[in-house]
Amino acid sequence: MITGKNYIGNKLSAKGDKTFQSLNPALNSSNEWIFTEATSEEVDEAVQLAWDAFEIYRTVSSEKKADFLTTIASEIEALGDSLLEVYCQESGLPRGRAEGERGRTLFQLRSFANLIQEGSWVDAAIDTAIPERTPLPKLDIRKMSIPIGPIVVFGSSNFPFAYSTAGGDTASALASGCPVIVKSHSMHAGTGEMVASAIIKAVQKCGMPNGVFSNLTGGGRTVGAQLVSHPFVKGVGFTGSIQGGRALYDIAAQREEPIPVFAEMGSINPVVILPGALQNDLDKWSTAYAESISGGTGQFCTKPGLILGIKGDLLSQYTEDLGAKLVALAQGCMLHSSIHSNFNHGKELISSQSGVSVVAAYEQDVKPNYAQQRLTTVEGKTFLANHTLHTEVFGPFALVVQCENEQELVAVIKALEGQLTGTIISDSSELANYTNVISALQNRVGRIVFNGVPTGVEVCPSIVHGGPYPASSDSRFTAVGIHAIKRWVRPFSYQNWPQELLPLELKDENPLGIIRLVNNISTAKAIESTTKELNI
Amino acid sequence: MITGKNYIGNKLSAKGDKTFQSLNPALNSSNEWIFTEATSEEVDEAVQLAWDAFEIYRTVSSEKKADFLTTIASEIEALGDSLLEVYCQESGLPRGRAEGERGRTLFQLRSFANLIQEGSWVDAAIDTAIPERTPLPKLDIRKMSIPIGPIVVFGSSNFPFAYSTAGGDTASALASGCPVIVKSHSMHAGTGEMVASAIIKAVQKCGMPNGVFSNLTGGGRTVGAQLVSHPFVKGVGFTGSIQGGRALYDIAAQREEPIPVFAEMGSINPVVILPGALQNDLDKWSTAYAESISGGTGQFCTKPGLILGIKGDLLSQYTEDLGAKLVALAQGCMLHSSIHSNFNHGKELISSQSGVSVVAAYEQDVKPNYAQQRLTTVEGKTFLANHTLHTEVFGPFALVVQCENEQELVAVIKALEGQLTGTIISDSSELANYTNVISALQNRVGRIVFNGVPTGVEVCPSIVHGGPYPASSDSRFTAVGIHAIKRWVRPFSYQNWPQELLPLELKDENPLGIIRLVNNISTAKAIESTTKELNI
Repeated sequence: MITGKNYIGNKLSAKGDKTFQSLNPALNSSNEWIFTEATSEEVDEAVQLAWDAFEIYRTVSSEKKADFLTTIASEIEALGDSLLEVYCQESGLPRGRAEGERGRTLFQLRSFANLIQEGSWVDAAIDTAIPERTPLPKLDIRKMSIPIGPIVVFGSSNFPFAYSTAGGDTASALASGCPVIVKSHSMHAGTGEMVASAIIKAVQKCGMPNGVFSNLTGGGRTVGAQLVSHPFVKGVGFTGSIQGGRALYDIAAQREEPIPVFAEMGSINPVVILPGALQNDLDKWSTAYAESISGGTGQFCTKPGLILGIKGDLLSQYTEDLGAKLVALAQGCMLHSSIHSNFNHGKELISSQSGVSVVAAYEQDVKPNYAQQRLTTVEGKTFLANHTLHTEVFGPFALVVQCENEQELVAVIKALEGQLTGTIISDSSELANYTNVISALQNRVGRIVFNGVPTGVEVCPSIVHGGPYPASSDSRFTAVGIHAIKRWVRPFSYQNWPQELLPLELKDENPLGIIRLVNNISTAKAIESTTKELNI
Repeated sequence: MITGKNYIGNKLSAKGDKTFQSLNPALNSSNEWIFTEATSEEVDEAVQLAWDAFEIYRTVSSEKKADFLTTIASEIEALGDSLLEVYCQESGLPRGRAEGERGRTLFQLRSFANLIQEGSWVDAAIDTAIPERTPLPKLDIRKMSIPIGPIVVFGSSNFPFAYSTAGGDTASALASGCPVIVKSHSMHAGTGEMVASAIIKAVQKCGMPNGVFSNLTGGGRTVGAQLVSHPFVKGVGFTGSIQGGRALYDIAAQREEPIPVFAEMGSINPVVILPGALQNDLDKWSTAYAESISGGTGQFCTKPGLILGIKGDLLSQYTEDLGAKLVALAQGCMLHSSIHSNFNHGKELISSQSGVSVVAAYEQDVKPNYAQQRLTTVEGKTFLANHTLHTEVFGPFALVVQCENEQELVAVIKALEGQLTGTIISDSSELANYTNVISALQNRVGRIVFNGVPTGVEVCPSIVHGGPYPASSDSRFTAVGIHAIKRWVRPFSYQNWPQELLPLELKDENPLGIIRLVNNISTAKAIESTTKELNI
């Protein structure tokens, strides 16, 4: 049941008078539920509860935290089909996607559970004492990662499950030992409330402290801004637009105590298609890219928005082929009417720039909120002269840039902002001639792909989802994969600390059997004996 | 020879007309050398060179980078006694300290050389392909850390060697593959130029690209502000005051592309001394703390500035004893006349607050720039009511807070800003009664010390030098120890990338023999065979 209320810790609450509804974009009509925006008082209450919960939650054992995460996963599963139905009603996304994304969300929760149960992720380092060292004795010092405090997670519009209420940001923060306050995405507030109810059930079943999780709704920016400004909030996770992410970053940076914001923002995901690949596999790559550009109605952060090639008959043929295949695909519903109108605006903005021509466009009428695909093209020198052409158009749209030669191709890549991904499509034999292209691309992106498509972000330890600004606000972290947990922890040292008071991760006997850096050697062995206490 | 010029890459340059001199604080007279502040054009030239050098330097092998670092160390050693003399002339610090700090600096350079030569620091993670996986094949993905770009390092006033020109920030950035532009500290610009000359010699001997290192001088804030604003600068390292660090953080956060700033700023390093320790070891701890408060003339980031205890005869006796011992120690020269006047100002500011009494003060005349130690005390409730009492006083000064009971002690700790260190002085038998104190302290600091002093920061893998704001601007990193390198790198993924183009760290055969996370198992083994390329 969807109540339209906020979860302030374990309690449903709706003290405010501002309300809103989510949209069913496929039907272009409002959904039935009425959501009440959290009041300033409720926001404060949620953060205060999270702060108090942090005192307890940061000392909860990894085993119990892992159990909590897997219980969240089970409780989400237990919501069954009704959750999938609400997801589809609020997102316009098809049932298959709902199922797939739920699977990914459960997998993420369980991956973080496994990570913390294994335990080595805390990067334990131990340097044992050398009392006889001169001129000064060496003291015993031991380090591990500890959580930083309550984290605010913003639900993303395009991943109502995997990057929202119980998505990667929430899972990684809870795994690290940080309480989470979710600012639910207003476009799928019903989905959000249902997932939140599953988390709250898990909190109660697992005996976690009240306030370790809250779910706040709001139609505008007020709730989010208050959360990010609150002195007891210590970090922020966000997936969305550059404008939105930067606004939060700015609030966080201007606080008396600035806090880290990991915002995964915009990317046009350049793809370089080299002549050899066009020669041998033109058809294969036009098919693959028509699908990659329009998959999920083009609403993936990693959608290829920019295709770079070297001018010539082959590139022209590829462009025509890609355009034809793109417009032949089924038209998809977009997430929301505002995303749909932004898509139309962006598409027209690029298309209307001097020197840009439309290769193919789906022109027939579609249902409201359905996207009409379009492919455009421009010459390299025109692209270099017009920064508007770098704009991300969220939806099934791409721009093919025809470069005069390899030199111009490198110049175009170097002129790009930071990107989540970059892709090279190539015949292996020609790669040696394009080392400058590869090197330039590597310096602009977080993940480089060879002969593939950038869409489809594998959840695994080796993935990087992030990149130089504005792909993300801090390129030193990834938002996807188990190492996303590193965003929410800080290293902490114990010096000359009594064995009995050390956490399990740092005790001589290594009861958790984790890998530790002991006197600069990576090992899972116990430490045989150390000087217990070295007084000065 | 000290020329007073800037190093723009390998070239000495002095195009400007603003000049300044450093002070010999012990003699209270200007040193002979005249330094020319870098012009805006010279700043731009240095950054442009660094940007170009980055293209090359980021691909230099670890072995060659390690050789570069050890050559820097040898070239610094080769400067011999003349370097130590200039250090003492510009800092007022004694010869023994100069030698010790030089040793630490060389050790740091060599530690980073060892780290990158061993190679596992890049946190390589490999997930091999599973072509037969359904519904979608799993692609081969491989991740490692790569450098982020040119880093600006600000020389610190209190560590002319170890946290300045070739100090920990520079060594860690160069080790990571990032070029460095040092904004030399004006108070020891001569020391800085000599060390810079050693680095430039190493650049040339090792065939490193011109621009991988520059050294810029400036008397005010103009040069630093221009550096931090420059679009080609990608990170900043700073050690100094909260005001200075925050100003740089703000510039960096307001850029079109915000960049990470690691500023190690202020700390009053609270020390909790519990009744059992006072009962058994009062004399030992008053001796140790008199020395810790006044060591280096109280000019360490980790100087204990706040001593917290529970009111009673024992604490009174300890306070008297500590005060007597503190003022009996020799008066030390401070680094500069402005640091000396700030010390006097801060000392008076605290002493003049309502409820603060002076326990002991050295009142006799001293030479100019020499510090007169002082110990003060206040009640817990007064401390809680007056935020001015949290002010860091840089120099041989401390405040003893007499708390009514354990509850008030916890309240005082919770009211503190973030700190580099926290210390518990205790008889082990009483610790169990103070778990709330320990827990509260842990949540406020980067390093917790048992029965010791916070001064003396061991350079080792397990050290954390950093902490919640304002101890540092990003508690998720340490400024000291080999893991300081993590500040300057970002994770980077290769997806489906050809073996022959992968960096050595990620090749199947693991030619460097590093520890990698392969399919979620930490191992130094080679990978037997992987699907070379998986086309979609």
